[in-house]
Amino acid sequence: MQPLANDTFLRALARQPTDYTPLWLMRQAGRYLPEYNASRKKAGSFLALAKNPAFATEVTLQPLDRFPLDAAILFSDILTVPDAMGLGLYFAEGEGPRFERPLRDETSIRALAAPDPGGELRYVTDAVREIRKALAGRVPLIGFSGSPYTLACYMIEGGGSDDFRALKSMLYSRPDLLHHILEVNARAVASYLNAQIEAGAQAVMIFDTWGGNLTTSGYETFSLAYSRRVIAGLVREHEGRRVPCILFTKGGGHWLEAMAASGCDALGIDWSTDLGKARTRVGAQVALQGNLDPGVLFAPEQAIRSEVRRVLDAFGPGPGHVFNLGHGISQFTAPESVAVLANEVHTYSTKLRQTRAA
Amino acid sequence: MQPLANDTFLRALARQPTDYTPLWLMRQAGRYLPEYNASRKKAGSFLALAKNPAFATEVTLQPLDRFPLDAAILFSDILTVPDAMGLGLYFAEGEGPRFERPLRDETSIRALAAPDPGGELRYVTDAVREIRKALAGRVPLIGFSGSPYTLACYMIEGGGSDDFRALKSMLYSRPDLLHHILEVNARAVASYLNAQIEAGAQAVMIFDTWGGNLTTSGYETFSLAYSRRVIAGLVREHEGRRVPCILFTKGGGHWLEAMAASGCDALGIDWSTDLGKARTRVGAQVALQGNLDPGVLFAPEQAIRSEVRRVLDAFGPGPGHVFNLGHGISQFTAPESVAVLANEVHTYSTKLRQTRAA
Repeated sequence: MQPLANDTFLRALARQPTDYTPLWLMRQAGRYLPEYNASRKKAGSFLALAKNPAFATEVTLQPLDRFPLDAAILFSDILTVPDAMGLGLYFAEGEGPRFERPLRDETSIRALAAPDPGGELRYVTDAVREIRKALAGRVPLIGFSGSPYTLACYMIEGGGSDDFRALKSMLYSRPDLLHHILEVNARAVASYLNAQIEAGAQAVMIFDTWGGNLTTSGYETFSLAYSRRVIAGLVREHEGRRVPCILFTKGGGHWLEAMAASGCDALGIDWSTDLGKARTRVGAQVALQGNLDPGVLFAPEQAIRSEVRRVLDAFGPGPGHVFNLGHGISQFTAPESVAVLANEVHTYSTKLRQTRAA
Repeated sequence: MQPLANDTFLRALARQPTDYTPLWLMRQAGRYLPEYNASRKKAGSFLALAKNPAFATEVTLQPLDRFPLDAAILFSDILTVPDAMGLGLYFAEGEGPRFERPLRDETSIRALAAPDPGGELRYVTDAVREIRKALAGRVPLIGFSGSPYTLACYMIEGGGSDDFRALKSMLYSRPDLLHHILEVNARAVASYLNAQIEAGAQAVMIFDTWGGNLTTSGYETFSLAYSRRVIAGLVREHEGRRVPCILFTKGGGHWLEAMAASGCDALGIDWSTDLGKARTRVGAQVALQGNLDPGVLFAPEQAIRSEVRRVLDAFGPGPGHVFNLGHGISQFTAPESVAVLANEVHTYSTKLRQTRAA
């Protein structure tokens, strides 16, 4: 494997000094890019893109060709694992992901098994290998999965939800069944992420999109406990380098201290949490990734620049910051706005360091 | 006016000792009650119910006839004010509230005016008067409104939203226009709540359903600053008694200290925040209202009882707690589960006080 030309992202995650604050964007390869929409049209659908390593490689690299991003992220979905468990992932037009066969009875829950990453999920590791080759050391590649709890939310509800009624009914009525699902999911996610690492992912991220729908004690019991198991099971060194793990819980701002003690290297922070306060709370334990409101990208150039500076200033001096949005980029974002964002992150964070050094 | 037979709710809001923890439920008059559905069928629609004082009185009292609740809440909608501004509130089947004429251009924004509560909104104060008569002093009556910011979200988007694109575009591109809307809303909400108080509302609540979609600085600038103006403009004593104000921001757990300093008497707390930690953070400044996960009501009796005890234990000893859900009750809740909840709140909180006294 070629040496990394730009390892700023990995050094920031290790809380080492960098010349500027590295940047990538959640869902950076997506519908706001015309070239992505063209590839998707060629492939026929989102899943056809994600399941074909050549297409996945093509769209993973598209945003890197446009913007000076410091990391690539595997083009895939957070729900590949339950799809490989046989639940039948599909995307209804204009809606989020759905499962054809949600978990609604004890028999199907007891029959649940962690998929072999070398079997049904082979398209993912093939894509990781092909992307690494295509990147040729430009920037590191991030692998990812949904958290055991977030997978369970989708597996039980059959899709997103306003009230998570099926999930909450099980949680409060039959916690034993939910724990069984979570236990299988934790094993499945750990082996899935390890397969991505073996194939060449240089960092991994656990997306806990729905952990924020829990109470404080519920978050510990049903979400964090299982993310912790995943993290404990991860290969932490590969190709002679630490493979950092980023844990992101949307709406998890209450629980940063507990999340920071999970064994992960960094926390993803949504935009509702002040980054400076988050940093004070977790101290030197972990790096932080985030947290611009994706809505800022609907603003004109000067407002984007000033909101970017606000995030960089909130984190303040010192190493350990990866710039990102606080949640996924909107499909209605103008690509030019992303160029402004990237430019401001790099120039302003460089200047900040020079001011400090002076 | 008759003296209050049960003023436990008002005493808890004033942080005075009570024999037990008082209880009411957000959206306690609603679709989970068969008698409510019968009234709604008679009236023809939700808005026809809300806009007819006789119907509004009928459904406001229904949950009190079933459950030993310690407060009534006016049957109405959080969006009556922008409806009276001429935006045309309607409810699409199976969706949330929507406006026929959302605010999309500067001309209509500049034309916005605070409605006279004695005009278009007369049906609300008529309902308050009629409900007070029908209550005959059983329990206090709560009046309410959406917060200036939450009203603005709906007024600009035209309904609920996943990404609040129109709102965020205005916030970051034309903050002056958003401030203008918020300024009008703050005046409108204050005079609307005052009209409810003059008509007989014995406490008021400000629902900031969407404040949680902001950043920390955005929350201060666009939501809290205007809720503070409303609170500063409220009549605080009526019928010889303090009229307490409860401020609730869904997803506002980060900002409790600032919310507690807003001039309100109590904070509504959603279920993601631990009530004991919230209490430590705000100290003796305000009472707290909340915060059972509404999903608990999908569970069997023993689980409901144990989760109710968990909330009461989390708040701990001392005055200043009003029991409630952390958000509105689901239409899929079994009424029997609410009876279990009410029984457990009253018996367990009575026992807690006796244990402490012994």
